[in-house]
Amino acid sequence: MTGASGVGKDTIWQAALPGIPNLSYAVSATTRAQRPGEINGRHYYFYQREAFQQLIAEEALVEFAEYAGDYYGTPRQQLEAMLTSGRDALVKPELIGAREIKRRLPEAVMIFIAPPSMAELERRLKGRGTDSPARIAQRLARAREEIAAVREFEYVIVNDVLETAVRDFCSIIYAERVRSKRLTATDIARFLRET
Amino acid sequence: MTGASGVGKDTIWQAALPGIPNLSYAVSATTRAQRPGEINGRHYYFYQREAFQQLIAEEALVEFAEYAGDYYGTPRQQLEAMLTSGRDALVKPELIGAREIKRRLPEAVMIFIAPPSMAELERRLKGRGTDSPARIAQRLARAREEIAAVREFEYVIVNDVLETAVRDFCSIIYAERVRSKRLTATDIARFLRET
Repeated sequence: MTGASGVGKDTIWQAALPGIPNLSYAVSATTRAQRPGEINGRHYYFYQREAFQQLIAEEALVEFAEYAGDYYGTPRQQLEAMLTSGRDALVKPELIGAREIKRRLPEAVMIFIAPPSMAELERRLKGRGTDSPARIAQRLARAREEIAAVREFEYVIVNDVLETAVRDFCSIIYAERVRSKRLTATDIARFLRET
Repeated sequence: MTGASGVGKDTIWQAALPGIPNLSYAVSATTRAQRPGEINGRHYYFYQREAFQQLIAEEALVEFAEYAGDYYGTPRQQLEAMLTSGRDALVKPELIGAREIKRRLPEAVMIFIAPPSMAELERRLKGRGTDSPARIAQRLARAREEIAAVREFEYVIVNDVLETAVRDFCSIIYAERVRSKRLTATDIARFLRET
């Protein structure tokens, strides 16, 4: 799940996840400042810059990217534990990280969350009040770059009406789980069972 | 939407459709006998064999197939009217018809409804009480053939728990509508709008 800062990714997945069985959120690591209300280990794993670089050196991240001066990445161990236990993992990388995950795990499903417009995204970032004007300008520039890459994603949800965005997000998970390419020979043998 | 007779296709779409905007059921034409409770023009368009052959000759059907001694087909005019008015159309062809629709309309999404097992399908067909034992045997043989072709479909829903099957069916519709391949240049320009 990728999309501009402020587009509503966290609101969407936090509304969607409780209703979907066997789906876990893979908490990202970051060096950005912890915001009020954010819990370390739940919203992000917060790291100092040097500690994060240590993670990179140890190849403890599946993907990482620098974005607006901060590092963001996906811890490998946590993600692998989810997948080997048969759960689906929701990862929230930046564009470059999303590409890296898709390269390593081609069965990954790429979902882009788009703003109704850049004007609306700017309003949301200003309304959040967590970023300086310079940081907001940086985030908007990055959002334009990401939107230019939107066709690399399999799905694009416009976060205009939140309820609709959440419904579409859940629908993608359920629909992907019944894609025939995920059928095993055992599944098909089961359909044919005569007793 | 394709699947064996008795697998629950009608139950699924009748439960799903009222909640999904802009989706219409394209009523099939058939020569099979009208069952009690079935309404001509709602469940099927019922035709005598000669009248159906006339439809074939006039190319008034998008697809048709003979199945267990009866003809089934999809009237062209109705389907085209739905699509040109911007609605999605739900079509319920047999396997051969599904292939023909996919060939003519590559953007069609193929959904297969599978039984939990052949044993369960047989129980359902017997429980319905509308078919002779010979007709049931014919339907089961056809079901085995269709299941062998299941990988031609994009999605496979197992109709075990009806609620789950309906949820998955609705999810496929909503997810397909947010596939990035359906994005237009206008959509992307809208995301980038600054005012």
